[in-house]
Amino acid sequence: MPFKLLCPLAGLILLSAAFLPHGSRAQAGVAPPPLLLMPLPADVALDDGTFRVTADFTIGSLSDVGPRLRKAAARFQARLAGRTGLFLSQDVFATLGWTEGTSLFLKSAREGRLEPNEDESYLLLVGSSRIVLDAPTDLGILRGLETLLQLLASDDKGFYFPCLQIGDRPRFTWRGLLIDAGRHFMPVDVIKRNLDGMAEVKLNVLHWHLSEDQGFRIESKSFPKLHELGSDGFYYTQDQVRDVISYAADRGIRVMPEFDIPGHSTSWFVGYPELASAPGPYRIERRFGVMEPAFNPADERVYAFFDAFFGEMAALFPDPYMHIGGDENEGKAWDANPAIRAFKTNHGLADNHALQAYFNGRILKILAAHGKKMIGWDEILQPELPRDIVIQSWRGRDALIKAAKLGYAGILSNGYYIDLCQPASFHYANDPLPDDAGLGEAERKLVLGGEATMWSELVSPETVDSRIWPRTAAIAERLWSPASVRDVEDMYRRLEAISLRLEECGLTHIKNRDMLLRRLAGTDDIDALRNFVDVVEPLKQYKRHSQGLTYTQFSPLTRIADAAFPESRTARLFAAAVDDFLKDKDRETAADLREQFEWWKANQAALIPVLRDSAALREIEPVAADLARLAEAGLAAVTAVESGIAPGPGWAEAAEAAIKEARTSKAHVELPIVPAVEKLVRAASGR
Amino acid sequence: MPFKLLCPLAGLILLSAAFLPHGSRAQAGVAPPPLLLMPLPADVALDDGTFRVTADFTIGSLSDVGPRLRKAAARFQARLAGRTGLFLSQDVFATLGWTEGTSLFLKSAREGRLEPNEDESYLLLVGSSRIVLDAPTDLGILRGLETLLQLLASDDKGFYFPCLQIGDRPRFTWRGLLIDAGRHFMPVDVIKRNLDGMAEVKLNVLHWHLSEDQGFRIESKSFPKLHELGSDGFYYTQDQVRDVISYAADRGIRVMPEFDIPGHSTSWFVGYPELASAPGPYRIERRFGVMEPAFNPADERVYAFFDAFFGEMAALFPDPYMHIGGDENEGKAWDANPAIRAFKTNHGLADNHALQAYFNGRILKILAAHGKKMIGWDEILQPELPRDIVIQSWRGRDALIKAAKLGYAGILSNGYYIDLCQPASFHYANDPLPDDAGLGEAERKLVLGGEATMWSELVSPETVDSRIWPRTAAIAERLWSPASVRDVEDMYRRLEAISLRLEECGLTHIKNRDMLLRRLAGTDDIDALRNFVDVVEPLKQYKRHSQGLTYTQFSPLTRIADAAFPESRTARLFAAAVDDFLKDKDRETAADLREQFEWWKANQAALIPVLRDSAALREIEPVAADLARLAEAGLAAVTAVESGIAPGPGWAEAAEAAIKEARTSKAHVELPIVPAVEKLVRAASGR
Repeated sequence: MPFKLLCPLAGLILLSAAFLPHGSRAQAGVAPPPLLLMPLPADVALDDGTFRVTADFTIGSLSDVGPRLRKAAARFQARLAGRTGLFLSQDVFATLGWTEGTSLFLKSAREGRLEPNEDESYLLLVGSSRIVLDAPTDLGILRGLETLLQLLASDDKGFYFPCLQIGDRPRFTWRGLLIDAGRHFMPVDVIKRNLDGMAEVKLNVLHWHLSEDQGFRIESKSFPKLHELGSDGFYYTQDQVRDVISYAADRGIRVMPEFDIPGHSTSWFVGYPELASAPGPYRIERRFGVMEPAFNPADERVYAFFDAFFGEMAALFPDPYMHIGGDENEGKAWDANPAIRAFKTNHGLADNHALQAYFNGRILKILAAHGKKMIGWDEILQPELPRDIVIQSWRGRDALIKAAKLGYAGILSNGYYIDLCQPASFHYANDPLPDDAGLGEAERKLVLGGEATMWSELVSPETVDSRIWPRTAAIAERLWSPASVRDVEDMYRRLEAISLRLEECGLTHIKNRDMLLRRLAGTDDIDALRNFVDVVEPLKQYKRHSQGLTYTQFSPLTRIADAAFPESRTARLFAAAVDDFLKDKDRETAADLREQFEWWKANQAALIPVLRDSAALREIEPVAADLARLAEAGLAAVTAVESGIAPGPGWAEAAEAAIKEARTSKAHVELPIVPAVEKLVRAASGR
Repeated sequence: MPFKLLCPLAGLILLSAAFLPHGSRAQAGVAPPPLLLMPLPADVALDDGTFRVTADFTIGSLSDVGPRLRKAAARFQARLAGRTGLFLSQDVFATLGWTEGTSLFLKSAREGRLEPNEDESYLLLVGSSRIVLDAPTDLGILRGLETLLQLLASDDKGFYFPCLQIGDRPRFTWRGLLIDAGRHFMPVDVIKRNLDGMAEVKLNVLHWHLSEDQGFRIESKSFPKLHELGSDGFYYTQDQVRDVISYAADRGIRVMPEFDIPGHSTSWFVGYPELASAPGPYRIERRFGVMEPAFNPADERVYAFFDAFFGEMAALFPDPYMHIGGDENEGKAWDANPAIRAFKTNHGLADNHALQAYFNGRILKILAAHGKKMIGWDEILQPELPRDIVIQSWRGRDALIKAAKLGYAGILSNGYYIDLCQPASFHYANDPLPDDAGLGEAERKLVLGGEATMWSELVSPETVDSRIWPRTAAIAERLWSPASVRDVEDMYRRLEAISLRLEECGLTHIKNRDMLLRRLAGTDDIDALRNFVDVVEPLKQYKRHSQGLTYTQFSPLTRIADAAFPESRTARLFAAAVDDFLKDKDRETAADLREQFEWWKANQAALIPVLRDSAALREIEPVAADLARLAEAGLAAVTAVESGIAPGPGWAEAAEAAIKEARTSKAHVELPIVPAVEKLVRAASGR
């Protein structure tokens, strides 16, 4: 549908009325445009022509719906100037009026509320002389401005936006990122830059995990020993919290706090041991894992404490939800306390499961009295609880479906554990609500969305961004875009572009790798090291915890395993090339592969002196040797497959041995090219 | 003097008594050890042997002198673990006791005061089995811990500290860095990471420039319209200020605020026009330069305002000094106001200079009433002011010497204007107190030190670090180390090492360059672009303001001129190689130069498609062409000089034309290799 906007006002009225049904075109099989958008909008119709961005680009609003819109316009203008180098007029803080010459019109009826199921839809119309962004709420404007910035392109005439029409709205209303500030504290600037990153990909909930065995991270005026004794001095002041909430609200993002109880609570008891099930004394936990300390559910002082504590926090956090954790309480501390055992008997509570349900019921009443709805992990699900609680599933989608069938709303986190360093494609395939979920229409509405979870056992403020980004952008797309958007190759193509754009808000996911390599090497001459680390990934899942070194809160997170990206692009492209080659045996791909192998071999020669020069790098020498051997094996395999002449006797055994050795964990990293090399070797040896 | 520490306690007593006179060895001509220390200590005596750093490295203190020491020990331990990858036991937050197995003993008698002339000396003794750091105050401990971290080295056996003995103390007591948060706001994380960088090189004063025509950057509870209307929302809350002060104090750094009056004050008048000399209304100034608005010195309401305002700020900032600016008030607004003219006449004030002296005298009384000493720029120097004010000289060392002769203390900033992108060697040569200053002993003591000044017309939070670091480390050495430390080549050798270490505290001076290049190029394949930018520097001094584009507060600072480092290492090494070659004509250097020129030529071929692909990069195409032509000319020149055969007719003219063209400013950058190429060309053509 070609689109020319002749008169902005008339256009707005016309097009608002013609707002397109959700996903109509995308689902109708129209070829996707070659745009680098992420998440992909529900509906895109490309037009011919371009809107040229020049130094007189201005923004105007047809109505003033509040400071959030003005600030968003100012940020948009600054980012546009920064990316183009154009000296734009940017004095849009004070006013946001419009004149005939205005380039971008914002039209919004009201301020959006920061709560689930608020309208975030928008209509973006780029004509060759006008751009109109029309949305029922200013939240839609925020989402649309991010889309527009992603559309910026350049050619030999300069910068432009392609003429098009986008009708967009989220598939799920709850699109979150959990940041665990408990196990490793994350300073405010880490939180803020990640909020900016979230805004870029249209995530709308920061789930702030504020208490753990390893640290209580927020100032409490009612119970100051919580942060004074439970945090090593690393906590957010209430002013900082207000600042973060306001920063997030400016970006259309809810901030939902989590206080994990009754377990995961050692740090609370350093200052207030009388609230625990065992007498103490307690100190801040330095190890990781599931710990015994738990609140005493049989002691009325505990509920009085929570009434005051949640009262204080409810006043601080405007979000309608309060997350109470509830996970992984094994009940050992409860079993060991005779008073708690007696309490169970007296109250007819059959087991610790029932006792925790009792505890949750009490907490729920406290939260309700302070105007908050309760959300917690799978374990809180108890049929006696009212239906307005929300279940967050770390255990699996089945739990979510089961909850929905019982009438509970839920969000999915299983499959979105980004701390486990799995590939973006893995998370991308994880749909919270597949067609075959076996839920009715009303039940399907109870699946509100999902959250990526950045647990922080093995991340520091230096490395946390590279564990979150860019992979979380793929999760954001899963939660925003229509379910039909699922082309993995296209996702990766766009993910690479969005990753660079994410640097604009200060995220360090790309740049801190070289920084860590410089530190480890003690020099800025890190080409050989970078080439090597390009095909190295940190050990996945929980494997780093079983390599002979016990990670604690104080362990260094500055080694190659920490510097390496969770997902190697080189390895991914290499694996695809190997598959292509094994399918078609074409000479060009064979030459590419040979060149890659020769390059790795040559790099090994350059790398060895670097490793020898640095005691901190020496642990990866055997990994580098593995890579060199894989390259050797791969080279011979390509030649053998291409020529059809099997390598000499014993070759296959030697190659398999090299592969086996390369699979043996070393230095807490792995070589993701192993499976592809193995395919080549097996093809060469006919096994 | 070989040194073996057998018993830590005995050693401490012995060595404290034997504290070496200031600079005795360094000045006695002993060859400096090949240590990568910056600033160089007053006195270093190397011993044979090493202290091996292993996972059981621990820190203990012989006495608890307060939380600052504990926190410093914890930070030291974390940095040591981070750099070595060793899983050190680090639970030093709670206690800092010592046992027989303790590796590093800290011994300090008391907490240091954060004010001028406090003792920052320390004695660092590294033996093969013990390290002792002994200092009169914990400030000395902080300085010594930084020295120790700089000493960390590695060999084939692992990490170690070299055995040695260092006696160290600063030459000047006032070693500052000014950060201008007025013209461009610098968020708290920018301030904090720069405080860490300052601590690494032993700077001890953050001069926080908090108000400017372009912004009033601090929350005022007494006069909220100052920050509400004067800052675009970009200001520090008082809690943030307290946080920064506490963060700085933990690192032994004073925080001195500057409120620049009576000029440079437009932003104050947006909320309070009645305090200005002209009626207003006022809006935040977006342009840069010397503006007319000034406080009305004839209005008693102004002094009442300042009494309340400075009262509020004096309570917030614990530093003994309050900086009142006082610079560049041209008096035009005063001349235009009849009441002010009448006031001058009535008070017998001959000119605006006398009127400003009157104003300063009134402000001085207000500050004194609130317990603060006054400091200001050159312009405040008036013989009628008492002798406990301090003069900060932006005009020149002569002004400082003149002030000292009048009995005023002073600090030097002229020559330390790091915003002007001059080489580190320039700042390094700038001694606040040369031998020939013509001052007596008592007068010499009035020269307290100096401050690097990071004015922020042309820096953003993304680029400010690269303007401050690493060059400010050279200034830090000038202010800390003995005057005799002045080997420029050695300074650069150490500066390169310290620059990498400065990344450890999150400074972005290295890593943001590649980030900006990725953004400009729209790809992470930036090798050719980086090679080019390696020999590009931003225009120096104030030249960027006269290139046809008017920089305002909103102008993008994201172009190649902003990405490029202020000082090109490649260009510096190239110039040295050219000098070597022209002196000795040796074949090896000639080959190096030829290789460099060929490499630049080859890079140009790779660069052109990158520039053509990005509209934001296109402005540097002519600069790249200049570099290619310089390489061509240099190549021929080297051959000519080496062979003694002059190039063909017309060659010299063509080469000179290329040089002239390369000197013509383009894209706000310059090519620092031009002078060296010119030398080659002139040698080749015999001119």
